[in-house]
Amino acid sequence: MTLAIGVDIGGTKVAAGVVDANGVVLARIRRRTPSSDPEHIVDVIVEIVRQLRTAHDAVPVGIGAAGYIDVDRSTVLFAPNLVWRNTPLRAQVSERLGADVVVENDANAAAWGEYRFGAGELQPDLVCLTVGTGIGGGLIMNGALHRGRFGIAGEPGHMRVVPGGRLCGCGNYGCWEQYSSGSALVRAAREVATERKDDAKRLLAMAGGVIDAIDGPIVTRAAQEGDPAAMDCFDEVGRWLGQGMADVASILDPGRFVIGGGVGDAGELLLTPARETFSHSLSGRGYRPLADIVPARLGSDAGLIGAADLARSG
Amino acid sequence: MTLAIGVDIGGTKVAAGVVDANGVVLARIRRRTPSSDPEHIVDVIVEIVRQLRTAHDAVPVGIGAAGYIDVDRSTVLFAPNLVWRNTPLRAQVSERLGADVVVENDANAAAWGEYRFGAGELQPDLVCLTVGTGIGGGLIMNGALHRGRFGIAGEPGHMRVVPGGRLCGCGNYGCWEQYSSGSALVRAAREVATERKDDAKRLLAMAGGVIDAIDGPIVTRAAQEGDPAAMDCFDEVGRWLGQGMADVASILDPGRFVIGGGVGDAGELLLTPARETFSHSLSGRGYRPLADIVPARLGSDAGLIGAADLARSG
Repeated sequence: MTLAIGVDIGGTKVAAGVVDANGVVLARIRRRTPSSDPEHIVDVIVEIVRQLRTAHDAVPVGIGAAGYIDVDRSTVLFAPNLVWRNTPLRAQVSERLGADVVVENDANAAAWGEYRFGAGELQPDLVCLTVGTGIGGGLIMNGALHRGRFGIAGEPGHMRVVPGGRLCGCGNYGCWEQYSSGSALVRAAREVATERKDDAKRLLAMAGGVIDAIDGPIVTRAAQEGDPAAMDCFDEVGRWLGQGMADVASILDPGRFVIGGGVGDAGELLLTPARETFSHSLSGRGYRPLADIVPARLGSDAGLIGAADLARSG
Repeated sequence: MTLAIGVDIGGTKVAAGVVDANGVVLARIRRRTPSSDPEHIVDVIVEIVRQLRTAHDAVPVGIGAAGYIDVDRSTVLFAPNLVWRNTPLRAQVSERLGADVVVENDANAAAWGEYRFGAGELQPDLVCLTVGTGIGGGLIMNGALHRGRFGIAGEPGHMRVVPGGRLCGCGNYGCWEQYSSGSALVRAAREVATERKDDAKRLLAMAGGVIDAIDGPIVTRAAQEGDPAAMDCFDEVGRWLGQGMADVASILDPGRFVIGGGVGDAGELLLTPARETFSHSLSGRGYRPLADIVPARLGSDAGLIGAADLARSG
């Protein structure tokens, strides 16, 4: 029994795949998430898994979901984008499929995937950050996924980095992900377009002249083409990323940070300023080795690969 | 072989004791630290251990030292208050004593002591904070001391909580321990004495009218006697403590925080505002269980008890 099925449920899509013991995805299916109807999501999961099984003898199912999962890896406590509250997802899916099911936070599942088969390279003390709309986190400690006492560890995006700072979707002010994420990148670019129109000519042209049409892909493309204003935006977001990693390192002292997610995909545009700030901000620098900061390798498959592997390892 | 010797080396004193398998200290010795002469500290350690051994058949030796200890628990990488740089302390002491020696960060040793025999009560996901001059930290995860990849985990006092904030001894600005520690408490009290002289009458009287003579014990005594200005100071420091714990919880999600150290000894004066801010600041509050926040139980013995136990368990 080496094949497993991984399911990754995000705010807008469900991705599922058959994954072998080396982390290779043998088959995959993608669907839009009917996020307004929590029961329908269960229907979609069951349907996709059955479909994948018509061609592959894969039994255990791992589900990564964007939300707080309880410490038993069975109940979704709270999933702001999926309308789930105290939903016994494991039981609901397991009953209908007649299979062992494990539920995990999506960023935790992605971290496990990168640890086992990707840029983590089995480094036993690893922090994976998924820099997308917000910052997702997954912690590997001593070779195990750290879930915390209540299952909610690895949400560093909600560290407060600025007292009285920007309002976060979580209701607090000044959370890290308001300064280092896709939202922060777009915010920075729109600010440039508002305040320094001359510098933002390229960005504005790419957005058809509409400031509010500037989005993450536009900023990334402009920066990749060398547009100084767009590169400034990555620089700002990267510096906040590096500072937050220094804060995380003061607590955890990991050997490596793996950076994934939509913004993470921009690679060195983000990682170069992040590394620079990290090495200048780390408390005790000069007297301690520096953690590596490397890009993720599994892309958007990380979550389903990790979820499948967690299901396999029980 | 159930007896072990624990040695706790701080900036100003060396405390050592014979500790049994239940964490009971059977005998103890205290000496001032000759901190300007690193080799002399080794002499003092060796002498104290020999003296304790004249009455007790205790073999393994655990040393907790204020500084960065390498991941092999043998070399002091950097100890700002003890003039040690890359000092192979384990080898130096072990050779002269002919005994197994383990070296550990002092706050880590204290955390282990509280976990095994104190307020940690063997809760497997535990954060211990020693709130004294600064904030020392020790992390227990999944029932093990978390040392990190390079041995330097558990220094949350150097998270940046205020960009461009107060200068810290580590060289950075805005570190948590500049806002929640004995130094922060004294700073707050001296500010009150400078800016709101009428409110600070009691504090000033206790300090003989000299603002700079206001110290931690004075603020604590005044607050315990109900002086509103002194209680305000604890309130401020406690609120910063609670906010930082919420930040730590966003990463680690521990089941319990144990608060010790000189300021921690003030108990509810500190813990009540800390708990209040913690529960109001935690991201996702209302959808997740809250960690306990409890006072430490082993007092200033925590470090040597923990160091002895770490030596015993190898």
